[in-house]
Amino acid sequence: MSKTYIDQHKELFLEELFELLRIPSISADSKHYDDMLRCAEWLAASLKKSGADRAEVMPTEGNPVVYAEKIIDPAKPTVLVYGHYDVMPVDPLEEWKTEPFEPVVKEGRIWGRGADDDKGQSFMHAKAFETMVATGTLPCNVKFMLEGEEEIGSGSLYKWCADHKEMLSADIILVSDTSMIAWDTPSITCGLRGLCYMEVEVTGPNKDLHSGLFGGAVANPANVLAKMIAALTDEQGRITIPGFYDKVRELTPTERADFNKAPFCVERYKKSLEIGDVAGEEGYTTMERTGVRPSLDVNGIWGGYMGEGSKTIIPAKASAKISMRLVPDQDHNEIAQLFQTYFEALAPRSVKVKVTALHGGQPYVTPTDLPAYQAAAKAVEETFGKKPLPYYSGGSIPIVSAFEKILGLKSILIGFGLDRDAIHSPNESYGLENFYRGIETIVLFYKYFSEMK
Amino acid sequence: MSKTYIDQHKELFLEELFELLRIPSISADSKHYDDMLRCAEWLAASLKKSGADRAEVMPTEGNPVVYAEKIIDPAKPTVLVYGHYDVMPVDPLEEWKTEPFEPVVKEGRIWGRGADDDKGQSFMHAKAFETMVATGTLPCNVKFMLEGEEEIGSGSLYKWCADHKEMLSADIILVSDTSMIAWDTPSITCGLRGLCYMEVEVTGPNKDLHSGLFGGAVANPANVLAKMIAALTDEQGRITIPGFYDKVRELTPTERADFNKAPFCVERYKKSLEIGDVAGEEGYTTMERTGVRPSLDVNGIWGGYMGEGSKTIIPAKASAKISMRLVPDQDHNEIAQLFQTYFEALAPRSVKVKVTALHGGQPYVTPTDLPAYQAAAKAVEETFGKKPLPYYSGGSIPIVSAFEKILGLKSILIGFGLDRDAIHSPNESYGLENFYRGIETIVLFYKYFSEMK
Repeated sequence: MSKTYIDQHKELFLEELFELLRIPSISADSKHYDDMLRCAEWLAASLKKSGADRAEVMPTEGNPVVYAEKIIDPAKPTVLVYGHYDVMPVDPLEEWKTEPFEPVVKEGRIWGRGADDDKGQSFMHAKAFETMVATGTLPCNVKFMLEGEEEIGSGSLYKWCADHKEMLSADIILVSDTSMIAWDTPSITCGLRGLCYMEVEVTGPNKDLHSGLFGGAVANPANVLAKMIAALTDEQGRITIPGFYDKVRELTPTERADFNKAPFCVERYKKSLEIGDVAGEEGYTTMERTGVRPSLDVNGIWGGYMGEGSKTIIPAKASAKISMRLVPDQDHNEIAQLFQTYFEALAPRSVKVKVTALHGGQPYVTPTDLPAYQAAAKAVEETFGKKPLPYYSGGSIPIVSAFEKILGLKSILIGFGLDRDAIHSPNESYGLENFYRGIETIVLFYKYFSEMK
Repeated sequence: MSKTYIDQHKELFLEELFELLRIPSISADSKHYDDMLRCAEWLAASLKKSGADRAEVMPTEGNPVVYAEKIIDPAKPTVLVYGHYDVMPVDPLEEWKTEPFEPVVKEGRIWGRGADDDKGQSFMHAKAFETMVATGTLPCNVKFMLEGEEEIGSGSLYKWCADHKEMLSADIILVSDTSMIAWDTPSITCGLRGLCYMEVEVTGPNKDLHSGLFGGAVANPANVLAKMIAALTDEQGRITIPGFYDKVRELTPTERADFNKAPFCVERYKKSLEIGDVAGEEGYTTMERTGVRPSLDVNGIWGGYMGEGSKTIIPAKASAKISMRLVPDQDHNEIAQLFQTYFEALAPRSVKVKVTALHGGQPYVTPTDLPAYQAAAKAVEETFGKKPLPYYSGGSIPIVSAFEKILGLKSILIGFGLDRDAIHSPNESYGLENFYRGIETIVLFYKYFSEMK
């Protein structure tokens, strides 16, 4: 019955998703603030129309949260759906083959910013909800909490959750903001890395200098920054910040063996990324390097002359955005402190250094023996024809660990994305099949979850 | 008589210079091509008006050369004046306290891009020429060659000089595109460093990747670039490129002692640049580091996300502009090759590297026993009241060594700039006093030079 409803509304669901994707809700860029509001209003109206008793745009200290609920019986279990309506910036724009905010369907895929992350995935929950309401099969209470700051660290949501603890009471949080290992290897994410995102600025002379008149006698902030970044990792691919690995939970040999059972072909991985070789911490597999080991990446670097031709200067300053992915039981606040202390210590006396923590989040783990995890696994098995593998993703959804701390709730990370979706990159896309099968799977989750409770 | 003429025309000379400075002739930015033409036309007209028999804008393969001459008697010696009418880019624009192309006089100084380098200094020659013509004191033939590509490597001038060798025949080239040690320590530049300017690009994956899903397993081009740049210099401040120092001419102990006699206060130097310490090759003084030792500087670096807030990506590529200053007898073509070979060898298999030589120039030395050098020294001594010191500048005017090779002519580098002029930086300025005293000195140079010949 649900399947029939979904099949009959395929076109309409897609049209609605396109309306949502057309709103350029880039949270990292403050000039899109009006788009954030417009996007939130659109979602609230959509959830209301789908059958929510209550659906509203609730203010926070930053971008608003869309909250909606349908309480069919307070005695029944409650599912709290979390998602986000903000999207990543779209630069470099010239690399997009289609307009990022003019979604199109090509080759069975939806192309556009947010197609997967996380408008496409969040909207599956809205449509699964609509399906259950319309077909009279909604078996439990549902609450929606869709935020607008996930891509910039969910800054306002922490306080908002703490302020609305009662309203958000539930049995489990359901999230689709992750990927599966592969279309023929379904998986449910049960581990997320934490994040510690820093910005550094190295200042040398009080102005850009002529590199001929001063070159060789004055420390060049760009050269110094390069040396400092280089010193953050060693030849074995390990991070050199003192104390960085102190709290890293090492897997047992059995856990490592189990973890590496998931199908993974390094040659295919290299080919898909067009790289000559993988790289990372010595002694670990690629899956381990992204799943259960911490990492350190320069996300951006800039300084001096970047234009056409040549300019012979010693830049007055050079900057970088540097982030670390963390694993249990690292704490992002502690790591930010360790980073700052070490980075400052690396600086020679010839420069000044400023270190700023931009945002952070804790690592997270879902136990696979939770009833809600079992319900999700059963639903996925039914739609994909295969038992899903538990998966340790390298990504971070910092708010998920905060939900546990603030609301006392575990989260089920039932994501339907794939690596090829190119989230956070130009030419983001999402499979039409992923979208529709995701909706079916979510409906089944509700069925099995209410039966188990 | 000349002095009287200069004094009577001070205001007019300045007004004319302002007209010249208002033309934004930035050679590094192709969208200013029309400004280059306008600037050249303006200069030709100005030289004609000052008394040139011939003054024209001559095409090259790039920006045109302004050529002018006044031949009073083919039997008399000929001075060929070289200068450039192109200027450096003006970014970062927000650091300018006045508009870069709206010159103003404040605190006895002319503020604006090109005020010193090299419009201000070139124009002194035009006004000295006018003075001698107007007062009937021009003692020899004069030719002007003002180019529009000095700041981007004088690319078209080499061929243009070779094509016009006959027309450019002269006894000496006179150039004001350098600085003096200090207002109370006049000097004449007799050494220039060469330049080898490279651009490098490190490419990793075929698109920006999510730093969570891939971080730790895929080489990050920005991290790799930082490591590669770091590896270009060692802890002693020496450049590690194999063979780099092979042809560097070492000063004798006596030469070093003489060279270090010039007044220099490291504390004042640090204070003026607001740096905690100087830095450079171990075992050499600051003067030596910029004057007679080679150097390597990152002139610009960029990659990944540079905007507001945070974006969690592994950038697909990262780039840098890296230039080296060379000393006798290094050859910029050889150094470019050594750099490329070494830089490519530094790259791990996980990335691809592209190295491009943007431009280069050879180091240069003027012997202090040349009659023209002696004439210049006598002129400076008369106007400044002190014998000028021979000075080895860290800067490069690559075309000067080419003049020797192509035209067989030595150059006298009689510059009137000062370090505080902030050439190549925001808030470039030039002292009014430097401008007027420069004109007087140039007139005296002609007098002594013709007497000595």
